[in-house]
Amino acid sequence: MIRIAIDAMGGDNAPAANIEGALLALQESSEISLILVGKEEEINRILNGRSYEKDRLTVINASEVIETGDVPVMAVQEKKDSSLVVGMKLLRTGEADAFISCGSTGALLVAGQVIAGRLKGVKRAPLGVLLPTRKGETLLIDCGANVDARPENLLQFAVIGSLYMENVRGIKSPRVGLVNIGTEEEKGNQLTRETYPLLKQLSGINFIGNAEARDIPAGVADVCVCEAFSGNVVLKMYEGTAKALLGEIKSALKSSFLGKIGGLLIKPSLKKLLKTFDGSENGGAPMLGLNGLVVKAHGNSDANQVKNAILQSIGFSRNNVNEKIVRAIAAMKKTVETAEQA
Amino acid sequence: MIRIAIDAMGGDNAPAANIEGALLALQESSEISLILVGKEEEINRILNGRSYEKDRLTVINASEVIETGDVPVMAVQEKKDSSLVVGMKLLRTGEADAFISCGSTGALLVAGQVIAGRLKGVKRAPLGVLLPTRKGETLLIDCGANVDARPENLLQFAVIGSLYMENVRGIKSPRVGLVNIGTEEEKGNQLTRETYPLLKQLSGINFIGNAEARDIPAGVADVCVCEAFSGNVVLKMYEGTAKALLGEIKSALKSSFLGKIGGLLIKPSLKKLLKTFDGSENGGAPMLGLNGLVVKAHGNSDANQVKNAILQSIGFSRNNVNEKIVRAIAAMKKTVETAEQA
Repeated sequence: MIRIAIDAMGGDNAPAANIEGALLALQESSEISLILVGKEEEINRILNGRSYEKDRLTVINASEVIETGDVPVMAVQEKKDSSLVVGMKLLRTGEADAFISCGSTGALLVAGQVIAGRLKGVKRAPLGVLLPTRKGETLLIDCGANVDARPENLLQFAVIGSLYMENVRGIKSPRVGLVNIGTEEEKGNQLTRETYPLLKQLSGINFIGNAEARDIPAGVADVCVCEAFSGNVVLKMYEGTAKALLGEIKSALKSSFLGKIGGLLIKPSLKKLLKTFDGSENGGAPMLGLNGLVVKAHGNSDANQVKNAILQSIGFSRNNVNEKIVRAIAAMKKTVETAEQA
Repeated sequence: MIRIAIDAMGGDNAPAANIEGALLALQESSEISLILVGKEEEINRILNGRSYEKDRLTVINASEVIETGDVPVMAVQEKKDSSLVVGMKLLRTGEADAFISCGSTGALLVAGQVIAGRLKGVKRAPLGVLLPTRKGETLLIDCGANVDARPENLLQFAVIGSLYMENVRGIKSPRVGLVNIGTEEEKGNQLTRETYPLLKQLSGINFIGNAEARDIPAGVADVCVCEAFSGNVVLKMYEGTAKALLGEIKSALKSSFLGKIGGLLIKPSLKKLLKTFDGSENGGAPMLGLNGLVVKAHGNSDANQVKNAILQSIGFSRNNVNEKIVRAIAAMKKTVETAEQA
């Protein structure tokens, strides 16, 4: 049984959507048992009268809620009985294999490091975001809060991201690219120039060289490795450009009579497209390299998205991704040390 | 008379489109005199039989051409009689006020620094790119090749970019934003955290705080200040996302019968939209802070785009932007020194 804890209180549609998502996941998979963390009374009121396998769903009380407006570090320190902190503790004690939350990204990142703790050998726990591309999806890693990384961090992100895409998303020998501003090895800033040759000699990953930002949406790589500042810029430019362009298209269509009719005719095709291009459908952003998997689902997730985030954790646990990460990082350390001695 | 030199040989459609663009510009403005730099015989063959004001167009011979495949630094050193190098020299000697080229960006950046030379006080000459937004356009500065900038560089980019938008693009009191991954002052990497308070105390610019990448395409600022690595990521994600999304929309429309008809109906609206959203229409990327204005026009510019690049230089010279830059940077130095002494 894979044990997954869910922050029942985090997110815009909590607790209803979170609980509904949990019930949907229970129906869809017999491999999981779930723990809902949050205000017990509220949760039980929603569960009351619903039919589900009671031995696979437990509730753990947490009296507080971390709000998106709270300062992350302070909130994690002070709201010790919040659903986010209590849920994260279940990872540290080993009572849960994964923890899903639609709550504050900042607080999750802090609590992940401070409470769940990093895996042996992992220097930084990166936040990966699955970005839809023309060829499927790519894991952009790191999009977290720890900026100004060093080459060693990026090497670890490459290994961790590669294992995630292979074991959780089923991509054989994922193509790992280094996010950069040119394709040649000598292009980029100090960080990318130092990291490139190290990635090239790293065994166990399929490094394909630099991934120019321009080619990321086209699907040039399955794993896009970057320092968190660049990762955030990539992610937010992706969102911002798509939003602006679709907004402009809508206005353009409304501005003429033929456009209006055409717009009505293309609506179904466009809707289908937007769904595949909507990152929130694929089950949330994995925070990796921690004791247990932490998944940050969108703040405005509905029940279906919560369910997807829960189901994403199954492959992670079943395929022992964390054990593989620890082994790969130990092996990587050896490679880098040998290279340094040579 | 504003004297503008044009690299007749650079770009995919050279020399025909470049020369045609020059003739169009001559017709449109009586304020300019033009110098076509390149293979004299070829140029004259195209000019032969055309009617134009001969006293406002001269040709200067340059026997070599820098190709896009050439390594920039080597090409600038070795091809001393190339149109790009000869044209750039006209800025240094003061024989031209501006130099337009559709040739290699890398070679232009090198030649700008090495041959034209930087204005007094300017530490780095940034490449600005005009990005179309939902509100008009924004100057993304720096998108050049000099990465890993220091706060002082970013302060200068803010001043230079602000003067450019005000004097050349006619934006009153341009809103200057610092490209960052959050809106709060303390967000970002070491560079942005150090730069923010300095920008805040800088007089003479309208600093509006951080510009989150997500909000750039919506038009949150008129000048988006950044280090060149981030600038390139922003620019290329913008291009890459737009391209991927439009490609997907096309495929989606073709996949159904109604979509196909709808697609035909919306084509005119979409075409108009794409034109306003196409950065290459607005006259090229200005390389600023140099002795004279250097404008890098798109490699595949047609005559119209070359004309726009030429016309963009008029406002720059007429409004003495370079003198204003030198004055503003001298004043800025005083402010920063006073702040440091305090």
